[in-house]
This record gives sequence, structure tokens and C-alpha cells, in this order.
Amino acid sequence: MPGIGPKSAQRIALHLLKEGPQSIVRLAEMLSAVAEKVGFCQICGSFTDKPVCSVCDDPSRAAEVLVIVAEASNVLSFERSGLFSGRYHVLGGLISPLRGIGPDQLRIRELLKRLEDGAIKEVVIATNPTLDGETTAAWLFRVFEPLIGAGLKVSRIGLGLPIGSDLEYADDLTLKGALEGRRAIAQ
Amino acid sequence: MPGIGPKSAQRIALHLLKEGPQSIVRLAEMLSAVAEKVGFCQICGSFTDKPVCSVCDDPSRAAEVLVIVAEASNVLSFERSGLFSGRYHVLGGLISPLRGIGPDQLRIRELLKRLEDGAIKEVVIATNPTLDGETTAAWLFRVFEPLIGAGLKVSRIGLGLPIGSDLEYADDLTLKGALEGRRAIAQ
Repeated sequence: MPGIGPKSAQRIALHLLKEGPQSIVRLAEMLSAVAEKVGFCQICGSFTDKPVCSVCDDPSRAAEVLVIVAEASNVLSFERSGLFSGRYHVLGGLISPLRGIGPDQLRIRELLKRLEDGAIKEVVIATNPTLDGETTAAWLFRVFEPLIGAGLKVSRIGLGLPIGSDLEYADDLTLKGALEGRRAIAQ
Repeated sequence: MPGIGPKSAQRIALHLLKEGPQSIVRLAEMLSAVAEKVGFCQICGSFTDKPVCSVCDDPSRAAEVLVIVAEASNVLSFERSGLFSGRYHVLGGLISPLRGIGPDQLRIRELLKRLEDGAIKEVVIATNPTLDGETTAAWLFRVFEPLIGAGLKVSRIGLGLPIGSDLEYADDLTLKGALEGRRAIAQ
């Protein structure tokens, strides 16, 4: 499991044994409850304990902007920040030729279906700025291209200097992203 | 000196003593030569050993775009990456009310003089995305505002996710910058 090495694992195991069989049974029950209750939203593919997640079910969230992310955990990052009031679509992974993951293993068909009625005016491709993330972003752009004529705005999440950082420590690719991603300032 | 703690300092001192007086004299001579030769470019304020630096003196560099940075070392970051073919202006610091540094201590007058003849079409404010950097960027925008009507484009360097990063580890402010700085994709 991520973040638990052999030493931590042993420490946890010994802790549970010391706590007695009850605590182990309780943990097992909690885990099965999670396995039973938590699933994926039918619409966006994010985590939820209902058929439709709380974001998709919230009429106060803007239905025009869709942030497209790779994993359900990315939705949590945006939600934690409380900065985005639109909706999400979880791809369930990234295209990765090296690992044999192609576009048909992602939730693309579901995505295109959501775009069908034209209520969504903008899609923001928010896959990570990594090799697989950029490959997937480029591939998604090709998929969206025919819809641009029909009024869909396709954008990529801003790449550049992270807040609080120093130009001196920025790598070349980040500087490139920051230069290309410069924004006109307007009042 | 940055990067040299007491231990390193002692190691360097002992090394020089072991090398003999000649090496110390040679180092001293090199340092005085640097002090004598290296100064600041009359135009942009970057490091140079001539009155005008190699960037300002290069007719092949685009004269329309000016990247505004705080320190001469920031010019080196951009030049090392080889991604930018325009010119620079070094402010020589950042506005910092806490440290008592105001706009008049920066090379603003020189900057406005360079903008006078209208040859520069775009200024990219590339101060660090820190408190002082943002304060200075906001202040510069006020200064440039009257020139926007005259056709000057004012932009801010792109803030967002650094290349190779993961959404999961992005802080809220960086996510905010990345969302606000999203770019429409076009072929």
C-alpha cells in the first residue's frame, strides 16, 4: 500500500495484535462497509456513496464548464481547494502506450455523451503535465476538434510557475510553459 | 556567502592555504578583474562586461517583446533555457513595504523611457509569484495602464502547474492560478 513500507506494516500489525481481536474485526467491518458503499458516480466517474455524486447532483454548480481529470482523486484536489464551481469528468486513467493503455480503456464514450446536448460550453483538460498527461490532452483535443465549430471551447489547465516559486529554480520546460502561457492583464 | 556554511568556509580556507600563497593571489586577482569588468547593461540592467549587454546588442533579437524581471540572475534563467528571443528589463529588486523598498528604488524610469518610442509592443511581467513579486506586478500594471490605449500589450508570465508535477500535490493557490490561467487550445 502507498506510504506503508515493511517497517510501518510491521508496526501496524503489531499495534492491531496488541489492541486485541475486536479492533481487527472492527477494522475489517469498516473496510467491507467502504467496499460496499463507495462506488463511482454514473455521470462523472468520481467517488460517491450514491448512484450520482454530490457535485453532479448539485443544481447550484455551473453546468457549462467541465474539468476533465485522470483520476477520481484529482476531483478531491479541486474540491478541497473550493475554487471551482463547475463539474468534472473522470477519465479513469491516462493514455499510456508504454503500459498498453489506449483511449478505449478510458471513459471517453461517457464524456462525448455528456457533450451531446450542447449544455456544456467549455471543457478544461486538467490531466497532469507529464508525458502521459500531455499525450492524453493532445488526443482529447483531436476528439473535441469537430465540436469546436459547434461552439465548444476547449482549454488546457494553466501550466507555468507554481505560486511562491522562484524563477531561479524553474526548469526549462516550466519556463517554456510559463512564457507560452502568459496572460494578457486587463482590468 | 550563499551556499557556503562555516564548515565549507573552513575547508576552502584550508585548501587555499595548502595550495600556497600564489593560488590565493591568483584568486584575488581574478576577483578584482571581475569587479572591474562586470557591470550592468545601460539599457536592460543585466550583467555585462561591455556598456551594453549581448542581448540588447543583438539585432536578431525581437525588439517588440520585453520580459520584465526582478534580478539580473533571472535573465540568466531565461537565457539558459534558450526559449525566449526577445529582450529584457531588470528592475533591480521588488517592491517590498516590509523591507522598505519602494518603486523609486527600482529601474522604472529607465523602463518607461524604453517604452516611449512605441517600438516595444508587449511587456511580460515576469516577477516571481511571491508576495513581493505579485505586489510589484500589480503596481507595474498600474504604471502601464495608460499605455494600453496606445497599443501596448501587458501580460503576466503564466502561473500554474509546473511541468512534470501532479495535481495531487499542487497547493490551493497554484490550482487557482492554473484554473484562472487556462488557455484555449487552437490548432
